[in-house]
Amino acid sequence: MLKLFYAIETCALASHIALIEAGADYETAEINFANAEQASEDYLAVNPKGRVPALVTDNGILTETPAILIYIAQTFPAVQLAPLDDPFALAKVQEFNSFLCATLHIAHAHRMRGHRWSDDEKAIAAMREYVPQSVGECYRLIEQEMFSGPWVMGDAYTVCDPYLFTVAQWMEGDGVDPADFPIVADHRRRMGERASVQQALKEQFGE
Amino acid sequence: MLKLFYAIETCALASHIALIEAGADYETAEINFANAEQASEDYLAVNPKGRVPALVTDNGILTETPAILIYIAQTFPAVQLAPLDDPFALAKVQEFNSFLCATLHIAHAHRMRGHRWSDDEKAIAAMREYVPQSVGECYRLIEQEMFSGPWVMGDAYTVCDPYLFTVAQWMEGDGVDPADFPIVADHRRRMGERASVQQALKEQFGE
Repeated sequence: MLKLFYAIETCALASHIALIEAGADYETAEINFANAEQASEDYLAVNPKGRVPALVTDNGILTETPAILIYIAQTFPAVQLAPLDDPFALAKVQEFNSFLCATLHIAHAHRMRGHRWSDDEKAIAAMREYVPQSVGECYRLIEQEMFSGPWVMGDAYTVCDPYLFTVAQWMEGDGVDPADFPIVADHRRRMGERASVQQALKEQFGE
Repeated sequence: MLKLFYAIETCALASHIALIEAGADYETAEINFANAEQASEDYLAVNPKGRVPALVTDNGILTETPAILIYIAQTFPAVQLAPLDDPFALAKVQEFNSFLCATLHIAHAHRMRGHRWSDDEKAIAAMREYVPQSVGECYRLIEQEMFSGPWVMGDAYTVCDPYLFTVAQWMEGDGVDPADFPIVADHRRRMGERASVQQALKEQFGE
């Protein structure tokens, strides 16, 4: 059985949704960031980076959302969560997920995790102030350059969709107005109607 | 034919080395960051993100190093640059490359590209000062937790190796002493002896 370590309001939601959509047999374990459980000895034995998500598989442990998402797509091929037989199309999926992971998520992280890049409180505050601008620029690129529609990659629903939905949960907190990005806002609304998404949110937040 | 847009001293070197090792028929085009060519209208038509690398293929354009590397591995399968038939092993490759892209490279980028995350000059200077610590922590994790040896993933050479070699070029500039990370330093030395690596560096820097 697969086991997903997650924390609420993090990118782990994307892997959680993908597991449900894949029809995987899985269990979850919550890591409470408020109690700094991600830095506990027990959790560092799972993921020495002290981050979520981590997915325990029969072969070993996987971390990093883009890696976990493609693993789920590859191990449940019948569900067709990625264009596995088309190297270019699959690379486009990886390109989009890499952008979310290394650009959008990083811009977002400067709101709450500035201590990763400075120990100067004024600098950390300055980083926080800039988040609406840097995250907003990411959504501008997504809307104008990356999003094919109706799903991220076009007609085919892929693992890019739960990942975009997940990071788009943070828009308001990041000071980005969803009304300025109607394509992403509509995608978020449609994703929120999916049974898989509702189940993942229920499992993470309860009733 | 494939066409790689690169700039010197950037992560594009990893894709360049992989193209050579794959035996690909390719050409290169240099983007001069000193002249801000990455922000030119012509280049933004290639990559609206204004970053390198970008790989022009017969199917379209790819960006983001982890996506380009897996594309090269998949389109030249005989060279075995990734464990394509083993979803877990392939996900471990993606996990490592995702860490380089979204954690190590990002820590490094706070030295020269702090303006991505703040417009406050003092904050940008504070970010720059912290780089030895944040990049050093990445190498600690690589040495203690991720590097299998003799190659990143173990006995098999993969696209993780040129990517690690590429980011490790930046150690001294980032204020990280290679002597503190002997495994990475030895890997860098062995990579530097490969004909493919020497050819890529020669193509980028000339004689």
